[in-house]
Amino acid sequence: MKRVGLLGCGAIGSEIAFAIDSGKISAKLTHIYDFSKDNSKKLVDKLQNKPVVTENVGLLAASPVDLIIEAASQDAVRDDILSILQNRKDVMIMSVGALLDESIFDIVMDGCRDFNKRVYLPSGAIIGLDGIRAVQDELDLVTLVTTKNPRALKGAKFFETSTIDPDKITTSVVIYEGNAQEAVKLFPANINVAALLSLAGIGSEKTRVKIIADPCASKNTHEIYAEGKFGKFSIKVENVPSPSNPKTSRLATLAAIECLKKICGTPLNIGT
Amino acid sequence: MKRVGLLGCGAIGSEIAFAIDSGKISAKLTHIYDFSKDNSKKLVDKLQNKPVVTENVGLLAASPVDLIIEAASQDAVRDDILSILQNRKDVMIMSVGALLDESIFDIVMDGCRDFNKRVYLPSGAIIGLDGIRAVQDELDLVTLVTTKNPRALKGAKFFETSTIDPDKITTSVVIYEGNAQEAVKLFPANINVAALLSLAGIGSEKTRVKIIADPCASKNTHEIYAEGKFGKFSIKVENVPSPSNPKTSRLATLAAIECLKKICGTPLNIGT
Repeated sequence: MKRVGLLGCGAIGSEIAFAIDSGKISAKLTHIYDFSKDNSKKLVDKLQNKPVVTENVGLLAASPVDLIIEAASQDAVRDDILSILQNRKDVMIMSVGALLDESIFDIVMDGCRDFNKRVYLPSGAIIGLDGIRAVQDELDLVTLVTTKNPRALKGAKFFETSTIDPDKITTSVVIYEGNAQEAVKLFPANINVAALLSLAGIGSEKTRVKIIADPCASKNTHEIYAEGKFGKFSIKVENVPSPSNPKTSRLATLAAIECLKKICGTPLNIGT
Repeated sequence: MKRVGLLGCGAIGSEIAFAIDSGKISAKLTHIYDFSKDNSKKLVDKLQNKPVVTENVGLLAASPVDLIIEAASQDAVRDDILSILQNRKDVMIMSVGALLDESIFDIVMDGCRDFNKRVYLPSGAIIGLDGIRAVQDELDLVTLVTTKNPRALKGAKFFETSTIDPDKITTSVVIYEGNAQEAVKLFPANINVAALLSLAGIGSEKTRVKIIADPCASKNTHEIYAEGKFGKFSIKVENVPSPSNPKTSRLATLAAIECLKKICGTPLNIGT
């Protein structure tokens, strides 16, 4: 049975911890760390099988686990991933957006190669990455269309320089069109989805992104269109927000748990 | 580097062999078998790195490889999979439809458990199985809608008892609605797609299937609708036929190659 460490005990990290604790995943959560001691303490209190709370990230990286789950932040990926790989642990990364920074991406890839370790990225709040990866070499076009309630878009950097006021949007309107590279700077909340799609497909420069603000939208919707020699894909995901953290989709948590199940060894591996 | 054996040297098997031979996949194709000696000879002739052609399936199963790719037939899955697992090889199965037979499914799962081996099913001619698996426990409804030109449906068992004549269909029409279990008996050509979706989701009894015959269709189209507590998915895949075998989709071959790449160890694993 794989031994797992958890970096980050917030909403998603805790959900994953509960899934392991419930026996759903053939793994043992043995070590955890969160920069807030309060967070890790709260989590430990709720778990049946108590993991060790390490004093710092370095000690988590050096702990006797096979895999560390990053569920902390992009900064954590930036600062800690190399040390985790150096300590010969595989990593499952939740803050995938960090990998859009090419220097971080290179560090991760070099780390994997040098220490013969693997990095896993669950599909997050989108689906169909099995298909996008399969046709990667034949893709001519990939477009992501995200539709959210203006409330859910509020606070995005985009509005600092735009004449659009999210509070005054009364009908569904396209507020942004550009590439993924630019989009994630203006709409950081969309970064994980854009990063996953870019990495699986044709990169963040070529991946097109359209953002729609719809005051009637109650769910976060992502649509993906892909075309190439293979044919065409269109995907639409309407996501219910996570009950424990309305900023993330329930799907993102479920995808992480499923990904972990696969890493920890289901005999039947369904899907590319 | 993983050592791979190939069972079945037809169109898909050969495409996979070429992909390994070209160096695209970090694997070595060392042993192959096809019940037609002609097929295996033709394939060997076209490969740069010549594999051994075994005399029978038993010798392929016993050959010093890590993984065997089944690209033969449902009969091959039925007859040979247990012996392959007993010989301590992982298996990638292309003829996934065989697993809709519960007794075969149980044999495969028991074999995996008893011999601590893994079975891999690439996503075939559909996409989004990453998502379907992730929400498996929350699915209320899964529907597959397949649209094909009546030409591509001809010969299906369905027409033996139906009043519909595929040659006389002049406009797009729903010719079948039922569950996946029944659908695959009447439309065996749809079996892999229905099997993958059923296994990843809510099983073949609950998975709904609709078949549309459209005389204007030039591609094979599969649509998947899924609903549950997590939200909603809709997926549409328009598949160009494989150049080497018009009965299969190009996507199915690409999915198998991508799946093999993942099994053989890409450091970065994108998607659930």
